[in-house]
Amino acid sequence: MKTTTIKELTKIELKNPILIEGLPGLGMVGRIATRYLAKQLKAKKLARLYSPHFPYYVLVNKKGSVRLLRGEFFFWKNEAGENDFIFFTGDSQAQTIEGQYDVAGCILDFAEKNNVKTIVTIGGYRKEVEKTPRVVAVSTSPRLLNEALKAEALPSSAGNPIVGTAGLLLGLAKFRKIDAICLLGETRGYLPDPRAAKSVVEVLQKMLKIKVDLSEMDKEIEKSKEIVERMQEIEKRREKHAQKMRRVEEERISYIS
Amino acid sequence: MKTTTIKELTKIELKNPILIEGLPGLGMVGRIATRYLAKQLKAKKLARLYSPHFPYYVLVNKKGSVRLLRGEFFFWKNEAGENDFIFFTGDSQAQTIEGQYDVAGCILDFAEKNNVKTIVTIGGYRKEVEKTPRVVAVSTSPRLLNEALKAEALPSSAGNPIVGTAGLLLGLAKFRKIDAICLLGETRGYLPDPRAAKSVVEVLQKMLKIKVDLSEMDKEIEKSKEIVERMQEIEKRREKHAQKMRRVEEERISYIS
Amino acid sequence: MKTTTIKELTKIELKNPILIEGLPGLGMVGRIATRYLAKQLKAKKLARLYSPHFPYYVLVNKKGSVRLLRGEFFFWKNEAGENDFIFFTGDSQAQTIEGQYDVAGCILDFAEKNNVKTIVTIGGYRKEVEKTPRVVAVSTSPRLLNEALKAEALPSSAGNPIVGTAGLLLGLAKFRKIDAICLLGETRGYLPDPRAAKSVVEVLQKMLKIKVDLSEMDKEIEKSKEIVERMQEIEKRREKHAQKMRRVEEERISYIS
Amino acid sequence: MKTTTIKELTKIELKNPILIEGLPGLGMVGRIATRYLAKQLKAKKLARLYSPHFPYYVLVNKKGSVRLLRGEFFFWKNEAGENDFIFFTGDSQAQTIEGQYDVAGCILDFAEKNNVKTIVTIGGYRKEVEKTPRVVAVSTSPRLLNEALKAEALPSSAGNPIVGTAGLLLGLAKFRKIDAICLLGETRGYLPDPRAAKSVVEVLQKMLKIKVDLSEMDKEIEKSKEIVERMQEIEKRREKHAQKMRRVEEERISYIS
Repeated sequence: MKTTTIKELTKIELKNPILIEGLPGLGMVGRIATRYLAKQLKAKKLARLYSPHFPYYVLVNKKGSVRLLRGEFFFWKNEAGENDFIFFTGDSQAQTIEGQYDVAGCILDFAEKNNVKTIVTIGGYRKEVEKTPRVVAVSTSPRLLNEALKAEALPSSAGNPIVGTAGLLLGLAKFRKIDAICLLGETRGYLPDPRAAKSVVEVLQKMLKIKVDLSEMDKEIEKSKEIVERMQEIEKRREKHAQKMRRVEEERISYIS
Repeated sequence: MKTTTIKELTKIELKNPILIEGLPGLGMVGRIATRYLAKQLKAKKLARLYSPHFPYYVLVNKKGSVRLLRGEFFFWKNEAGENDFIFFTGDSQAQTIEGQYDVAGCILDFAEKNNVKTIVTIGGYRKEVEKTPRVVAVSTSPRLLNEALKAEALPSSAGNPIVGTAGLLLGLAKFRKIDAICLLGETRGYLPDPRAAKSVVEVLQKMLKIKVDLSEMDKEIEKSKEIVERMQEIEKRREKHAQKMRRVEEERISYIS
Repeated sequence: MKTTTIKELTKIELKNPILIEGLPGLGMVGRIATRYLAKQLKAKKLARLYSPHFPYYVLVNKKGSVRLLRGEFFFWKNEAGENDFIFFTGDSQAQTIEGQYDVAGCILDFAEKNNVKTIVTIGGYRKEVEKTPRVVAVSTSPRLLNEALKAEALPSSAGNPIVGTAGLLLGLAKFRKIDAICLLGETRGYLPDPRAAKSVVEVLQKMLKIKVDLSEMDKEIEKSKEIVERMQEIEKRREKHAQKMRRVEEERISYIS
Repeated sequence: MKTTTIKELTKIELKNPILIEGLPGLGMVGRIATRYLAKQLKAKKLARLYSPHFPYYVLVNKKGSVRLLRGEFFFWKNEAGENDFIFFTGDSQAQTIEGQYDVAGCILDFAEKNNVKTIVTIGGYRKEVEKTPRVVAVSTSPRLLNEALKAEALPSSAGNPIVGTAGLLLGLAKFRKIDAICLLGETRGYLPDPRAAKSVVEVLQKMLKIKVDLSEMDKEIEKSKEIVERMQEIEKRREKHAQKMRRVEEERISYIS
């Protein structure tokens, strides 16, 4: 495989489709939110993206078979609304600079071909989150940004970088006359963060006038809380030990000098 | 040299050939097993693969000449059975991400051209091995997987990554309608591990209904045992020394505090 | 995006244009000087350069929109003089070796297309600067070098490397029969250094017979002085602390031995 | 610049030319030997090689001009002998794996075009050299290897890698039916090593039946000896200091425990 390739699994006519993208990244926010939406809406397989810029390993699945790392497109026929949806998520981001630009370009090729006029990308925003994580929005379209702010997203301060596919899609979409918005859930980013993903999904529900059941997400949050608590306990003990070691060292020095 | 290139050394019609691949990797299991089979079956030279993604040095041979790093294809006419064999082994894996995908693609081009319908790739599986190393099998074909399990290979748990050419060949073969199976010999992976390679060869013998003399392999295992024992002794002494140093340090701290 | 691309924003006939280039680099000297000149001369947007060799993130701007990293060409119609000017600056240099050569080549393609016969590149020169930073000049044209020396630039000693776009443009311009000069402002290089940029601008004013108001630059220098002073204080304290620690350690050792 | 490019400076018919290559590498042996031969024989400029795989900086020369890093071909009309000579040396080797294969391929393109049938590459061989450095030879041609051994070069043991252009040229020349030999001067490799280069030149003189004055080389060796002696003194002092520190530490530990 020499170039990034998209393999279509089905042919379907979509009605003013909106593309929602979320790949692995900070706190896995984009991937968790996008997968959750696709799953809850029972979105169907549309296409797969393979790339020589993905890591060079394959993954074993439950049946003892393997598959290449890939991106996956799903679609959802939104009978009640004006826009069908395409979801894009996957195993990995491209691993090289040039690969990042290349994969983002291929995603946009596919979006254009399917008459996508609006793209939503999802990611994480590093922050020491106290209570409910907030969602930061940036957009190449004032209209979309306004809709996000009405849905309780916050504007971003200038100068922030948005790294990876979630950012590049916005930057490159402009040249194709595709409006795009990026929603970033606040996250400490160390571990998969379903809480941040939930905040993004809530903003998205309001913006896109869709409704998904969030109870499964709450279960994931409970599970992740336990992991975080265990991690924090380990961290505390480590810190305590480090303090003790510093004290020992200080005493040694004051003793000697 | 700008692209990966295969130079054919002979033209031959092969009968339903099966490709067996093993390159250097964890414990050298793939390379040792593949070379052993090719040697014992007196397989003949078929083609060579050169690539600008291999390391940029040449190797001196016994006659004082040098050669580029390369992959080598051998063939074996299996008069008694239904399938001839092609073996692929070599000096190195590709050194870049894109190079890994490119080399795997070129191997598959060659396989397709020779009407290969089944591929076996061989590698190592990191594990603290106590007794006889076991062999883990994954396959894109339930039929092949089943044959491996019948030959006493174990199924893999889901989520395991298979890194490098042994994995990518499986992932990419699917697009070409070629069945593929990967056999991974359990190995600590630090040193060339003929014991793990022997386990793989034994599974392969049953699966492929071939018979090779394993006495040479046993000699290699004896030699490698001596090396391992020497290494372990060094390790033990190092650990003893580290323990002593830690004790000294602890005493110092308890003395001071 | 697979290749470096220049998007023209306006078509304009320029009179013997001179290209002045300054990208981020040592002390940000090139970028500060070039941006300052373009701003003071009220240069207008001419074109933008995008590249898959730039870092893979986008920047948020004041309106909450984002944009790709890019290079920017501006032009200034110099009614009083013989030469119009094109300025080139941007967010980043290319991130890979091959990318550096590629981007420099694309800048030259654009220069040639606009009949540029002279290029000035600006950068920083690492030096512990005591008083006013001096400007070092190198040029592929003895005539240009001579003009720079008359404008009080200093010649460079042989063997110095000039890294990045500022250097490659000179090296590559030779093959296109374009004269080029590089002006390097002396700088410690740790922080954005408007003082070094001002020295370069002063040389350029004399060389190119243009006149810009430098009072804004002086304000930037004042601001940066405060930052430098604060940094130096921190450094002093760190050094003091390190000395103290070394003393403690020495005493400990002399005490023990 | 997107690809490696050779710019011819002159057109000349050469008589059975032999190409002698030496780029910077271990101990700079290849570059020193090749430059010395070209200079002593008053070889003339033939062509230059530029590559986007070379480091991305330019070098300032004595006149205050700059130039890209490059490779240089020189030629020498050998009136008395059967073979004219082409010398190839330069500032740098290619910086990426694929670049190494690409540059070696371009050198061979140029060699083929000039009807080169024999190539000599020169490099360094890491060894703690006591007295006069010896020269190790490997060759794709038994005839050439034999000539080198007669000229007092030593054969290489099997398995040695020869890294970089000096090695790849041999490996790749085979495919073009060009005989090639590599001469490696023994060197500690830390510093430019004219002594190792001289040993190689002496072997070459015998092999190629040429005669060059070696007195300039002897001067370089004298200079380098002084540098080595100064370096060794620094090393000794450092070792002494380290020993002292270890003793202090040991005493401290025995004191404490």
